[in-house]
Amino acid sequence: MQVGIGDDGAVLNCQAGQQQVVVTDMLLDQVHFDLQTTSAALVGRKAVAVNLSDLAAMACWPTAAFISIAIPRVMAAPDQFLSQLYDAMAELADQYRFTIAGGDTNRWDGPFAINVCLTGVPMGQQAILRSGAKPGDKLFVTGPLGGSLASHRHLTFEPKLQTAMWLVENATVNAMMDISDGLSIDLHRMMEASGTGGLLSEDGIPIHDDVPESLSRAVRLQAALSDGEDFELLFALSDDTVLQSTAIDFHLIGYVTDQVGKVVVEDSCGDRSVLPESGWQHS
Amino acid sequence: MQVGIGDDGAVLNCQAGQQQVVVTDMLLDQVHFDLQTTSAALVGRKAVAVNLSDLAAMACWPTAAFISIAIPRVMAAPDQFLSQLYDAMAELADQYRFTIAGGDTNRWDGPFAINVCLTGVPMGQQAILRSGAKPGDKLFVTGPLGGSLASHRHLTFEPKLQTAMWLVENATVNAMMDISDGLSIDLHRMMEASGTGGLLSEDGIPIHDDVPESLSRAVRLQAALSDGEDFELLFALSDDTVLQSTAIDFHLIGYVTDQVGKVVVEDSCGDRSVLPESGWQHS
Repeated sequence: MQVGIGDDGAVLNCQAGQQQVVVTDMLLDQVHFDLQTTSAALVGRKAVAVNLSDLAAMACWPTAAFISIAIPRVMAAPDQFLSQLYDAMAELADQYRFTIAGGDTNRWDGPFAINVCLTGVPMGQQAILRSGAKPGDKLFVTGPLGGSLASHRHLTFEPKLQTAMWLVENATVNAMMDISDGLSIDLHRMMEASGTGGLLSEDGIPIHDDVPESLSRAVRLQAALSDGEDFELLFALSDDTVLQSTAIDFHLIGYVTDQVGKVVVEDSCGDRSVLPESGWQHS
Repeated sequence: MQVGIGDDGAVLNCQAGQQQVVVTDMLLDQVHFDLQTTSAALVGRKAVAVNLSDLAAMACWPTAAFISIAIPRVMAAPDQFLSQLYDAMAELADQYRFTIAGGDTNRWDGPFAINVCLTGVPMGQQAILRSGAKPGDKLFVTGPLGGSLASHRHLTFEPKLQTAMWLVENATVNAMMDISDGLSIDLHRMMEASGTGGLLSEDGIPIHDDVPESLSRAVRLQAALSDGEDFELLFALSDDTVLQSTAIDFHLIGYVTDQVGKVVVEDSCGDRSVLPESGWQHS
């Protein structure tokens, strides 16, 4: 895809019949990061990386980024800040071979805000949606969950584009999305979009080392289910044979059921309870 | 173009070989509007309309919009505000037949901010850029300039999509852009992008009725050159014969020259002076 830059907008020349995908995310100071403790470089990196994660979730490569920035009038050395911010975004653009094709910088009396819009094209024949899960599918995540905000992992995570590419090349993925608001909320969303339900195995849910070992098992599980900002992929496969012969870190967490919108968790004793959307606490 | 909604991103199905265009603009409280005196409906309208104006400037129809919003925690009745904001955006989406295909709403401790990203497709064979003006071309604007902020015209203007369509169907436009920062700055941008210069006729520059008649001629002209937020189209034509047989309001303001990046204004006595980028005051 060719991208023309620097006009009222950018021109993308599509190949015949190809899908295009657009994702967008706005990140705000004191909500998605804290400028008092986070460098411009990490803010710029995260703003682009969360959108790359959305593209990975749809099994798409990025093509072009459009950046809008609101910068506080009171900021000291705004030019240095912007230059470090853009350098970090340009580094991801180099790494994943897309173009920073446009944008908009404004000064105002509010805090720092950044919006990134990314276009992409499918890695395979078409984008993978979250709505294609089928009863009987196995549910996987691409890595351990929980503790991302507290550990600052959310600022440095690697978007799972390569893993998505591996899946496109080696498996038939029925549904996929990224875990940004927490496994519990995001799995509910996938199940609702697919018209299915989910049965999670409590023992199958991988808990990240960033969740302190000193906490109780129940609290650690709750962190994995609802902390969010994990940016791992959640996906559904009918046939998982191929996953058994790879070194990539896939975790079987459960199964898709025909109970529309209902997610159930089974503990190690085989007892089942309904998982509310916000996650679930052992009583 | 088909648009799929409500996943990690939106899927756009392009026709074979068709160009796609992406525009984006972030609008901020107290910069682009004042929420203390402006309704949610007018804010939503403007946020989409300025992007439609960018698409008109590239001679493109809109296909899909992606809206990101930061809403202050202290706002009274935020749900009502958001509903009025979205209704106004949906009205433009109905009028110009595009889809609101995605977005992101966040609450924070800052002021209200909104980012709109619009995709579009060329009305004709391809998008019209600002870089195609040729020495000898005539320069036109689509309406009178100045006084837009003071009169609140910037909140209610009609983006010039129909006018752009007429031009695509009836003329060969070498370069086009919209006037958002003021004729002076924007004409400089077009001339620099085209590797050309401009010769403006002072008498040809249409001054909007929103610029008070009580002001001096020089101050009124300065308003037309530099107030900005006009959202009229500025375009360059080699052959303007067709413009003479239409009721559409086109104003010949000057000519393209070969003096790269230099814009000169000629007054009614034939005296010429260089127009600085920020506009120009009679001494």
